[in-house]
Amino acid sequence: MRMPILALFASGMLCFAQPSWREEGLLHLQKSPQARLHPVPVRAVQFQTGFWKTRQDVTIERSMPTLLELLEQNGIVDNFRRLARPDRQPPRRGPLYTDSDLYKWMEAAAWSLQVKPDPKLEATLDQLTDTILAAQEPSGYLNTWFVEERAPLRWQQQVSGHELYCLGHLLQAGIAYYRSTGKRKLLDGGIRFVEYLLRDFGPAPKRPLLTGHPELELALAELHRTTGDRRYLDLAAYLFSGIERERLKLRERDLVYLFSGKPFPERTRFEGHAVRALYAATGAADYVLETGDGAFRDTILRLWEDLALRKLYVTGGVGSRAAGETFGDPYELPNLQAYTESCAAIAGMLFNQRLLHLTGEAKYADLMERALYNGICSGMSSSGDLYCYRNPLAAPASDRIRNPWYTTTCCPPNLQRTFAALGAYFFSTSQDGVWVHFYDNATLDWKLESGTPLRLSIKTSMPWQGETEITVAPQKEEEFTLHLRIPSWSLSTSVEINGRRVGGPVRPNEYLAWKRLWRPGDRVRLVFDLTPRRVFANPRVAEDYGKAALQRGPFIYCLESTDNPGISVFEAALAGGSAIRSLPPAAAPAGAVRLQAGGLAYSPPLGQRPLYGFQPVTPLKPVTLTFIPYYAFHDRGPADYTVWLPCLNCGW
Amino acid sequence: MRMPILALFASGMLCFAQPSWREEGLLHLQKSPQARLHPVPVRAVQFQTGFWKTRQDVTIERSMPTLLELLEQNGIVDNFRRLARPDRQPPRRGPLYTDSDLYKWMEAAAWSLQVKPDPKLEATLDQLTDTILAAQEPSGYLNTWFVEERAPLRWQQQVSGHELYCLGHLLQAGIAYYRSTGKRKLLDGGIRFVEYLLRDFGPAPKRPLLTGHPELELALAELHRTTGDRRYLDLAAYLFSGIERERLKLRERDLVYLFSGKPFPERTRFEGHAVRALYAATGAADYVLETGDGAFRDTILRLWEDLALRKLYVTGGVGSRAAGETFGDPYELPNLQAYTESCAAIAGMLFNQRLLHLTGEAKYADLMERALYNGICSGMSSSGDLYCYRNPLAAPASDRIRNPWYTTTCCPPNLQRTFAALGAYFFSTSQDGVWVHFYDNATLDWKLESGTPLRLSIKTSMPWQGETEITVAPQKEEEFTLHLRIPSWSLSTSVEINGRRVGGPVRPNEYLAWKRLWRPGDRVRLVFDLTPRRVFANPRVAEDYGKAALQRGPFIYCLESTDNPGISVFEAALAGGSAIRSLPPAAAPAGAVRLQAGGLAYSPPLGQRPLYGFQPVTPLKPVTLTFIPYYAFHDRGPADYTVWLPCLNCGW
Repeated sequence: MRMPILALFASGMLCFAQPSWREEGLLHLQKSPQARLHPVPVRAVQFQTGFWKTRQDVTIERSMPTLLELLEQNGIVDNFRRLARPDRQPPRRGPLYTDSDLYKWMEAAAWSLQVKPDPKLEATLDQLTDTILAAQEPSGYLNTWFVEERAPLRWQQQVSGHELYCLGHLLQAGIAYYRSTGKRKLLDGGIRFVEYLLRDFGPAPKRPLLTGHPELELALAELHRTTGDRRYLDLAAYLFSGIERERLKLRERDLVYLFSGKPFPERTRFEGHAVRALYAATGAADYVLETGDGAFRDTILRLWEDLALRKLYVTGGVGSRAAGETFGDPYELPNLQAYTESCAAIAGMLFNQRLLHLTGEAKYADLMERALYNGICSGMSSSGDLYCYRNPLAAPASDRIRNPWYTTTCCPPNLQRTFAALGAYFFSTSQDGVWVHFYDNATLDWKLESGTPLRLSIKTSMPWQGETEITVAPQKEEEFTLHLRIPSWSLSTSVEINGRRVGGPVRPNEYLAWKRLWRPGDRVRLVFDLTPRRVFANPRVAEDYGKAALQRGPFIYCLESTDNPGISVFEAALAGGSAIRSLPPAAAPAGAVRLQAGGLAYSPPLGQRPLYGFQPVTPLKPVTLTFIPYYAFHDRGPADYTVWLPCLNCGW
Repeated sequence: MRMPILALFASGMLCFAQPSWREEGLLHLQKSPQARLHPVPVRAVQFQTGFWKTRQDVTIERSMPTLLELLEQNGIVDNFRRLARPDRQPPRRGPLYTDSDLYKWMEAAAWSLQVKPDPKLEATLDQLTDTILAAQEPSGYLNTWFVEERAPLRWQQQVSGHELYCLGHLLQAGIAYYRSTGKRKLLDGGIRFVEYLLRDFGPAPKRPLLTGHPELELALAELHRTTGDRRYLDLAAYLFSGIERERLKLRERDLVYLFSGKPFPERTRFEGHAVRALYAATGAADYVLETGDGAFRDTILRLWEDLALRKLYVTGGVGSRAAGETFGDPYELPNLQAYTESCAAIAGMLFNQRLLHLTGEAKYADLMERALYNGICSGMSSSGDLYCYRNPLAAPASDRIRNPWYTTTCCPPNLQRTFAALGAYFFSTSQDGVWVHFYDNATLDWKLESGTPLRLSIKTSMPWQGETEITVAPQKEEEFTLHLRIPSWSLSTSVEINGRRVGGPVRPNEYLAWKRLWRPGDRVRLVFDLTPRRVFANPRVAEDYGKAALQRGPFIYCLESTDNPGISVFEAALAGGSAIRSLPPAAAPAGAVRLQAGGLAYSPPLGQRPLYGFQPVTPLKPVTLTFIPYYAFHDRGPADYTVWLPCLNCGW
């Protein structure tokens, strides 16, 4: 028999730790004690007409509603509804982790309410909350897979079961909805599940627990921030402790693949399942933000180095191997075979965001940008209803990598929650002032940590042209530091404040920290250097040796057959000496600056030539090559495309 | 109850087709009606001191005995013995296909008896035959896995069960032993199993059959050749027919992965499991050799093109992906990640041998040589007791790719049977004469197809130096054609007959066909061009672009850390302009000509440099690089090695 949830509330069976978080009514991120930077809430940032406004609009107006329809059509919501029906119909559908897909969609929708209030959407979220919580058991346990004949399997399949993974996304949805609306019902449902865990699971003599797919760790850190309840952070610490290896009979390969189950500070490299590993590392970074733990801090910095120096695609994509969706060996970064799951690129951005907030170092924002403008942005079509699971750096037209739906549909709602909450990634505060990480037409309406309300208005032609003006408007004049990120690709950047050029070096891949008495209406003008350039990989990356990619501003480009009729993009090369021209925007990809460069095509075609010979085969036919930003591949339909091309006379 | 085998014989329950093969006593390969070339028996060829003699000796003297010990230690022989014991002890060990490992070892041992008679070894083979046949059931069924509690699973797991795979190897062992000794007991056991199949399996209403791991097809073709019984070939045709897809409920991915279960002429490319696919193609080529079937012939030629133009490593290795041991996409030939199973290289050589016999075209012998001297030869250490399962084109010292034993130990006995029977790959006959495919110190004692006994004696410094003398000695003078393979790498070859230089072009990668009245004692002198050269890959091979490998004669070379102290082989490049010197043989790798070339090393090391940048990173520190033949990697212990290196100023 199931006791109604309200009765449980009334009965006092649900034990909450500290009531303060609810009384205080703090509906945004709390300051992590060890963080140098602190987040701004989603609602504090509004995008104006521009690149990210377009993407955020299509996410909210087209992507979210169509995905909810598909979640309904594929029975993902019915998986909850059926549990409240006496006949338990229709039968459950989809793989065992589908609950998380709905939660992630709800998280996206919740954030979107801060961008664009929508009573109808809010009502939908309230209904979904009721639907979900009606499936929650009195104990707090909530999962649509491990029910009925599979109920005895609960906690018996922690390596593969995704129970805690789903809980993590439930908590994140609950927190997002609470922060956006003040409504705590969904969050309370998640907390009930956590309280159930705290009662029954933990170090012996309690039952052992493992995040077979890390994710709960970050959610618990956020829950700790939201509630102030240290027990949630302690549960994350327990999950990172690796003390249950024996009790759970974990094999060495589990520890590698799951990136879970061994003491986190023993990690020396990224390995195993890419999303699992990056979520674990992000959760560990959250733990450092909350506790300052030195061993965890050393570990996340070591892991970051492994990622940045050896395991990251030029697009910010992560995860080289389809088999197991795993990291490859160092420098194993194949292009056509790249797995580069959208979720992994997002996870990489989350990891870098935590490190940015911990340190204030621009190199982390650089990798966030690399992912966001390339390997994450590519994950959703401009139409908002096609998604990539894989984002390879080259693909033939026959490889249908953009699809409206996947049986494992983790990526679409993950992209949505990222784009919906995007404003929060653009700015931060610190004790000494405010930080601008990325540049687009946007307004920050927030406050300095001194409490003084502050508005920053950015008017810019970025990301397509470099002119940028920021109007700084504290409510009253006040001395603070404006930290302006100078992107790694802007090799010469000019900065003027109120018309006066800033002296001293303005170095790429650093934050320019400008401390002064800022007055309402002060203007900062930046001109970034958007010269298109060839990018080269470390020669250890076997597939990219002798080759180049094109980059302009934050965008990596690709050569797609759509723009290059008569040329096989896999049989073309860049001519090193040739200039790279920026073309004015065309109808499609909408608004994008395309690039044009002189190249050479192999003729006769390579497919007719021997595999090996005693002379190198060089391309001889001059051609003009037209490139589009990588994120827009397949946006005009299936096509061959490639990021890396042989680069003749490029200095190799 | 088990009826003694002899009783079965006496009872006439065993039905043999044609007795002629036994009466005729033909102990060597029969002529396939559609073949242009015909094989010579193993015993017709004796190697003298030289490269392959050394390898064959270590195979027979060290490798075969130590592997038999390991087969015993790992219970592979006991898996048979236990079935004859009332207590069925000890329990069965190893994966379900271990029977084939013993059969393959027996095949190797059987061939070795033609090279070096050994009564003790013959007695061992007789005992093993008894042991094996004692486990054969009255029906003819023989398999040590599908017995006892697993007996009900017989033929229920044809996709994965390997029952027919094991039978194929049993037949090949039986045929080899019969050819070597005239003893037919083991072969008769295999035939009993085949007759059981013919009784119960086949098109409806019989039960359906599938080679989940192709191999039986080639064995049946050979059984047909050996016995003259067409029913065995028809059974192979049935296995190739693909008509049982429905009855066996095969999924599309099974048809791809198994390279079995769909009509063979529908195949357009190599895909799926590399060894399966190449065994299937070899069996299909055998079928063409026997029948001349046009659709099968078109298919094997199309498949060969796919292999040779898109899916073959420069070492003759095959199979790009570890996941599933499969072929990759066209041009997907990663080096460090190469799977390149020894068995796949052997299977590739077998496939090419069939095509060579079908057509007499040198391009097939070229690929046999590429595999034999490189990716097959690398499969066994010079000590004869370490084997590679994988033969990647680059590996770090930490990758222990040479081991004495594998749980799946298919490769070691496969290498042994290849080296034991190697002489038979060196020569062929045709209606018009005799063919020399490879050059080493060797004597062919055989006969022309006219019946005239013929001896060819080769004295050569090959494969290390090019001087070669062939003494042609027909028992009486006779006009016939001597077909001499001019290797693809010998760009200028001089040929003299009885001291007179052959006029006209001597073209690489062709057979020089010299028709004359040959007299006993005629001498042919060839000087091959062993100039060391750089080899370049088709630019579609992403990992090899801008790079070169070194080749000298049939050998591909690699750069191994053992010879290059202070240099990271993964951070070195060839300097295009520099000469490649041949070094005199050193103690190790024994007898091998090493190569030395000017190169450049990356300094500071690449591992400390960023993954991406706006300038290509070029190596600056001049170094001298010493290369060894690829086959000898890890022969002096674990080390870093690589075949392909960036090649600066090489004409890319």
